[in-house]
Amino acid sequence: MSLDRLLEKIAETQNPTVAGLDPKLDYVPEYIRHECFARYGNTLEAAAQALLLFNKGLIDALYDIVPAVKPQCAYYEMYGWQGMKALAETMEYAHQKGMFVITDGKRNDIGTTMEAYAAGHLGSIEINGQTIHPFPGDALTVNGYLGSDGINPLLKTCQAENKGVFVLVKTSNPSSGELQDRMMDGKTVYQVMGERCEAWGEALPGKYGYSGVGAVVGATYPKQLERLRGSLPHTFFLVPGYGAQGGGAWDVAGAFDRNGMGAVVNSSRGIMCAYQKEGCPETDFAGAARREALRMKADITGKIAPIRL
Amino acid sequence: MSLDRLLEKIAETQNPTVAGLDPKLDYVPEYIRHECFARYGNTLEAAAQALLLFNKGLIDALYDIVPAVKPQCAYYEMYGWQGMKALAETMEYAHQKGMFVITDGKRNDIGTTMEAYAAGHLGSIEINGQTIHPFPGDALTVNGYLGSDGINPLLKTCQAENKGVFVLVKTSNPSSGELQDRMMDGKTVYQVMGERCEAWGEALPGKYGYSGVGAVVGATYPKQLERLRGSLPHTFFLVPGYGAQGGGAWDVAGAFDRNGMGAVVNSSRGIMCAYQKEGCPETDFAGAARREALRMKADITGKIAPIRL
Repeated sequence: MSLDRLLEKIAETQNPTVAGLDPKLDYVPEYIRHECFARYGNTLEAAAQALLLFNKGLIDALYDIVPAVKPQCAYYEMYGWQGMKALAETMEYAHQKGMFVITDGKRNDIGTTMEAYAAGHLGSIEINGQTIHPFPGDALTVNGYLGSDGINPLLKTCQAENKGVFVLVKTSNPSSGELQDRMMDGKTVYQVMGERCEAWGEALPGKYGYSGVGAVVGATYPKQLERLRGSLPHTFFLVPGYGAQGGGAWDVAGAFDRNGMGAVVNSSRGIMCAYQKEGCPETDFAGAARREALRMKADITGKIAPIRL
Repeated sequence: MSLDRLLEKIAETQNPTVAGLDPKLDYVPEYIRHECFARYGNTLEAAAQALLLFNKGLIDALYDIVPAVKPQCAYYEMYGWQGMKALAETMEYAHQKGMFVITDGKRNDIGTTMEAYAAGHLGSIEINGQTIHPFPGDALTVNGYLGSDGINPLLKTCQAENKGVFVLVKTSNPSSGELQDRMMDGKTVYQVMGERCEAWGEALPGKYGYSGVGAVVGATYPKQLERLRGSLPHTFFLVPGYGAQGGGAWDVAGAFDRNGMGAVVNSSRGIMCAYQKEGCPETDFAGAARREALRMKADITGKIAPIRL
């Protein structure tokens, strides 16, 4: 009913980070792209195969030290249904390796339509008595602009399938304040959204104090992050914006509680493109990703309380 | 750079409505489902084929009288990548028949990630010099919670490809007011979002006074709809909530200007499931859809000014 399995994976790996899998084709080492184009031609299938091989290499290098992956739907949709097939296969592969999978889709709609997203991404569908999990995520990012009608259908699925969601609260981008920082009756929009997360989360209590309704709060707003940690005691944070977007370890430290819990920090490009930054041979992309993941782990765990459940 | 082609299709058909293609498997006539399961087994491929056959039948029955279709992504994602393949094929088929395609994805993200959604849904990608349009929509619904960083990447693609977007402003569901009706400095959140649409739309001016940045405003809030029509003179409205959600023709009349323009009203279940409501043989599902579309057209055009560009 919650994000407990994520917390357990974090405790097991002693690593409160998640590897974003946002594989633009440019990020994929040339030798992999070359191999796929040679085999499948200049097609979406070739692109999708390249993403999948890249992701599998990254997962192989990370699964024992990083608790979770976060594939970003946009980078798969961009390559059509073939890309979506690579998304599903990436998720299945990450599960085989024991990783927690956060689907970054920022989905939002109402009623039966939201139920359809919930079934597709967190639950299952029945085809003539056959149960199928189309995109088997453990948690899904969602956008709460439509209110409870957009969240309640997810809660039902999360209860039934032991899954969670992360609601956008204070995003990491420069213009997030255009709406999110505006005041309503003495509170910012993001505070109000955060309080909604606490309320929605009551339906999905967790063993370790955090509910199944988490919040997305950016590393690029460290003061807000720290204040939200204080005011949302049952809401686990997914923190984007570390690394490429400018957030450092001290910026995310305020997201954590005195048990080193309370948040998981994402890095996408930093890990995926570590081989480019390092300047190592591109065939060592997975090794570079692992080195960067370990560096990031040390960077963050050095600034928070020891991790324990 | 805009929604002009939608307005032209509305004028051509003299019909300001859009047929929502939200094909839950339960909506598909049994003889189609049976045929697909017999051929493909109890698989996602069978489900996806059933959706596609249903959609094609609906499009064949509607393309000369209805200007646009609006496939809802959730109902395709729900059936996995096979469902997404049916989505792309539905879009291509609707284009062959000359219909305008509004992809209802309510997508939202920032920067390069939003560019990926823009490329996948409104633009194109290059695979080794090959240009591919993965999901060839003419307009995409989007969620503006993240501010301009989430909208600007779309505007670039819309300019280059002559496409448009619809931003969620005041949604049709009962809980839309939880956030959208809250006051910020004397204005509701949805008014502020509407004004953002006017501002974003300046980058995509249209020939007929309406920009390429439209707004989603629900039929279930007729007073707000009418007031927004007055305050957002360059913003074209996509109006859900007619029919199944309780909105009637008088409720949507306020969305239109004195040229019978300014809005397109969606009906999904009303049209798709007309055969169930009518009680006609299910093999006549397309005929029933056409009859309902004509009834809806007469219902709405009877309450607005004559349509002219």
